[in-house]
Amino acid sequence: MLTGASETGRRGGVRHLVTTDGLTREDVFRWMRLAQTLRTLPRGVLAQRLAGRVIATLFYEPSTRTRLSFESAALKLGAHVVGAENAVENSSAKKGETLADVFRIVGAYADAIVVRHHEPYTMVEAASVAPVPIINAGAGWGEHPTQAMLDVYTIWRELGRVEGLHVAVMGDLKYGRTVHSLLNVLRLFPGIRVTLLHPPSLGLPETMAQRLKAEGLQLQEGGPLADVLPRVDVLYQTRIQRERLTSQDELDGASQYRIGPVELALLPAHARILHPLPRVDEIDPAVDDDPRAAYFRQAENGLYMRMAILDDLLGGDGR
Amino acid sequence: MLTGASETGRRGGVRHLVTTDGLTREDVFRWMRLAQTLRTLPRGVLAQRLAGRVIATLFYEPSTRTRLSFESAALKLGAHVVGAENAVENSSAKKGETLADVFRIVGAYADAIVVRHHEPYTMVEAASVAPVPIINAGAGWGEHPTQAMLDVYTIWRELGRVEGLHVAVMGDLKYGRTVHSLLNVLRLFPGIRVTLLHPPSLGLPETMAQRLKAEGLQLQEGGPLADVLPRVDVLYQTRIQRERLTSQDELDGASQYRIGPVELALLPAHARILHPLPRVDEIDPAVDDDPRAAYFRQAENGLYMRMAILDDLLGGDGR
Amino acid sequence: MLTGASETGRRGGVRHLVTTDGLTREDVFRWMRLAQTLRTLPRGVLAQRLAGRVIATLFYEPSTRTRLSFESAALKLGAHVVGAENAVENSSAKKGETLADVFRIVGAYADAIVVRHHEPYTMVEAASVAPVPIINAGAGWGEHPTQAMLDVYTIWRELGRVEGLHVAVMGDLKYGRTVHSLLNVLRLFPGIRVTLLHPPSLGLPETMAQRLKAEGLQLQEGGPLADVLPRVDVLYQTRIQRERLTSQDELDGASQYRIGPVELALLPAHARILHPLPRVDEIDPAVDDDPRAAYFRQAENGLYMRMAILDDLLGGDGR
Repeated sequence: MLTGASETGRRGGVRHLVTTDGLTREDVFRWMRLAQTLRTLPRGVLAQRLAGRVIATLFYEPSTRTRLSFESAALKLGAHVVGAENAVENSSAKKGETLADVFRIVGAYADAIVVRHHEPYTMVEAASVAPVPIINAGAGWGEHPTQAMLDVYTIWRELGRVEGLHVAVMGDLKYGRTVHSLLNVLRLFPGIRVTLLHPPSLGLPETMAQRLKAEGLQLQEGGPLADVLPRVDVLYQTRIQRERLTSQDELDGASQYRIGPVELALLPAHARILHPLPRVDEIDPAVDDDPRAAYFRQAENGLYMRMAILDDLLGGDGR
Repeated sequence: MLTGASETGRRGGVRHLVTTDGLTREDVFRWMRLAQTLRTLPRGVLAQRLAGRVIATLFYEPSTRTRLSFESAALKLGAHVVGAENAVENSSAKKGETLADVFRIVGAYADAIVVRHHEPYTMVEAASVAPVPIINAGAGWGEHPTQAMLDVYTIWRELGRVEGLHVAVMGDLKYGRTVHSLLNVLRLFPGIRVTLLHPPSLGLPETMAQRLKAEGLQLQEGGPLADVLPRVDVLYQTRIQRERLTSQDELDGASQYRIGPVELALLPAHARILHPLPRVDEIDPAVDDDPRAAYFRQAENGLYMRMAILDDLLGGDGR
Repeated sequence: MLTGASETGRRGGVRHLVTTDGLTREDVFRWMRLAQTLRTLPRGVLAQRLAGRVIATLFYEPSTRTRLSFESAALKLGAHVVGAENAVENSSAKKGETLADVFRIVGAYADAIVVRHHEPYTMVEAASVAPVPIINAGAGWGEHPTQAMLDVYTIWRELGRVEGLHVAVMGDLKYGRTVHSLLNVLRLFPGIRVTLLHPPSLGLPETMAQRLKAEGLQLQEGGPLADVLPRVDVLYQTRIQRERLTSQDELDGASQYRIGPVELALLPAHARILHPLPRVDEIDPAVDDDPRAAYFRQAENGLYMRMAILDDLLGGDGR
């Protein structure tokens, strides 16, 4: 059961996943265990879980990777998929329709709606009238809760636990919504220490940092990589969100936060490098074949985590 | 059997639905009854009707809603769907290919083609060479026959009959193709009275009005809403098609034709408000929860009507 | 087994089809025979061959026809399809991601990737790291191997053999990648004679002509149509690739290479006209109903050839 924040809880019996705010550690573990189970099921058994359901994917902000991941997950569970890869251009949004109306109408055809939208608040509000589960697949500079879930799932699979780990998050901590959602989930686990590694202008927003600390997450600014990297369990690298920068000055110092063979050599043998992908030049491809490079496995974990979330919200276990 | 106009009739045994011109009242009732039947069938039985067929959706004029409605309908009947959400940009249309060639070629892969196109006459002509059923999903300022069918179906479901009703059509009667197709179907039913409510510049095209009257439809211009609304059974509201206006002057007086709590209070208790959607501001969301607001149910009826049309044209009953 | 060129061969057990360079006559015949078999199988049997697999279609250069052909083929074999009809606009390509990363990530969700890309070399390189089969669906001015395969298959079906035929290729031999890939496959068959018919500026690139001759293909420049056409078995007509021309001068003389009733009358009774489609004005529609006009049958053959290639590369026969 999703409880806590109204945005994530049941409304008239319908459960959504639009923010990480209302999640509990129990939610996270339930989905991680379900993901583990689903990846072991034979193809034919899997295809029974959501047989005949229709999942709609509405991408107002295009993202081929995330969309294909959700659609593959739905199809492997036996569901049908109807989708819009460029909803903002190709739909009634241009005519002035509200997202709330879209959810009510598409909810008449589909059993769940996966939506990526440029405006974070709009999605939360609109979900409140949706007759079917709404799943946030990324909302502007706001949240990306399924990415956070697959990130935590990857940490758990790779290292065997989440609690007590030292996680360094690196790169664009200002605009990178995946980091924001991830930290909001990590705060649910005891003993997590987070070190922030970023160019001067791209730090975590101050209000977010204050809130996370108030809720018990140990957050600290990092120093030189040579000091930090030898002590981390997880290095979570991110792409500079160039398309969201308001000034080129924000890029100053970004080149120091790339991962290449030198940085790799600083990491402990058991550590793992994660990245939400796509990457541009912030991880050297020479790193790809090192067993600590977990980012392609992370992408595959996304498939199973999204299967788990769809299956749970739609009651794929026969409820 | 579709008979009457050549555009709708059989050609070499292939039946299309490209215009409402050739439809008979028997066609309308057959599809409405079939829609009623299909909505009662269990998921697994439904999925047998068009199992293994391929439906292509080609949208030269984007419309996420209509496309998802057709695709959901096809998938629930067990068909596969291949689609182009932005066919005019992403296809050979840019290279100068004719729609007739597209129909012949896509007809080699698909068992039916659902097409939305900006040019009404083109679709009628091109259908004549198509080896598989062509279904018009909206043609420029022209027709939108499946919308008309779901509108009539909604009237029938909500009020128990179609004949003898008083229907007010409101808003943009000049460019609104859904109104044109709807009136062309309503003329098949005896005793229908239609009242036209519209800004001065957005009335029904004169030649269309003349033709409908000549074919027996009772058409009259409406007066103040306070006089008309208390006497209607159906209030069919439409959006101003701003993207088709040729002058801003055409908007003069449009603000009088909105539905809010005041207008709602004028309607009889049994009356119903329909709207083809999307809406912008012509229906106040405060009206949504009134039982007379039928437009979200209408959207759901669209799913079943499109299932009925696909099923009938493709012989889903085993013929 | 695909052997020969590294681009087409196995890599870690994964077979791709990115170029025709490594193909053998045995590959061609295996696929043609498999296409023949697949077109005779009942729908339900067909749907077992790739049941539960996921095929991704990534079109960085839009092409509705080719995409729908591949997607229909995959769906009829029982596979699921996830796709991007406009990948370059709607994806991480805009953010600077490499195609190699895309293949590794999408390969985590999908069992094969069908890709159309504007940059020929990129695809060959990226395929080398792909964990699943990559199928080239057209690469800029480069290759289009599945088109070549369906062309050869059409010749074989229409005329009963490939070896020893006289094939005239006409139109834009400079930019038309389908011609380049077709000639590269025809060179595998003994006794083929090829006559080139083209505007002065749109001949076959000289290095390509030299290479094909060196590998044993009989290539000759054609003279007046009145001399050439009565002696051909196959007339392969192509569209001028106006979007790739660098100067309007390249169009000089193009109007002589159209096929109308006059040219049709010059062809032997057993000859066949092929065209990769779309056509613009280079074949008069008056020719369409002549039994020698094979281009619409050719489009249908494309469906079965793509089924054969998918089935073979993904082991649809149960291997």
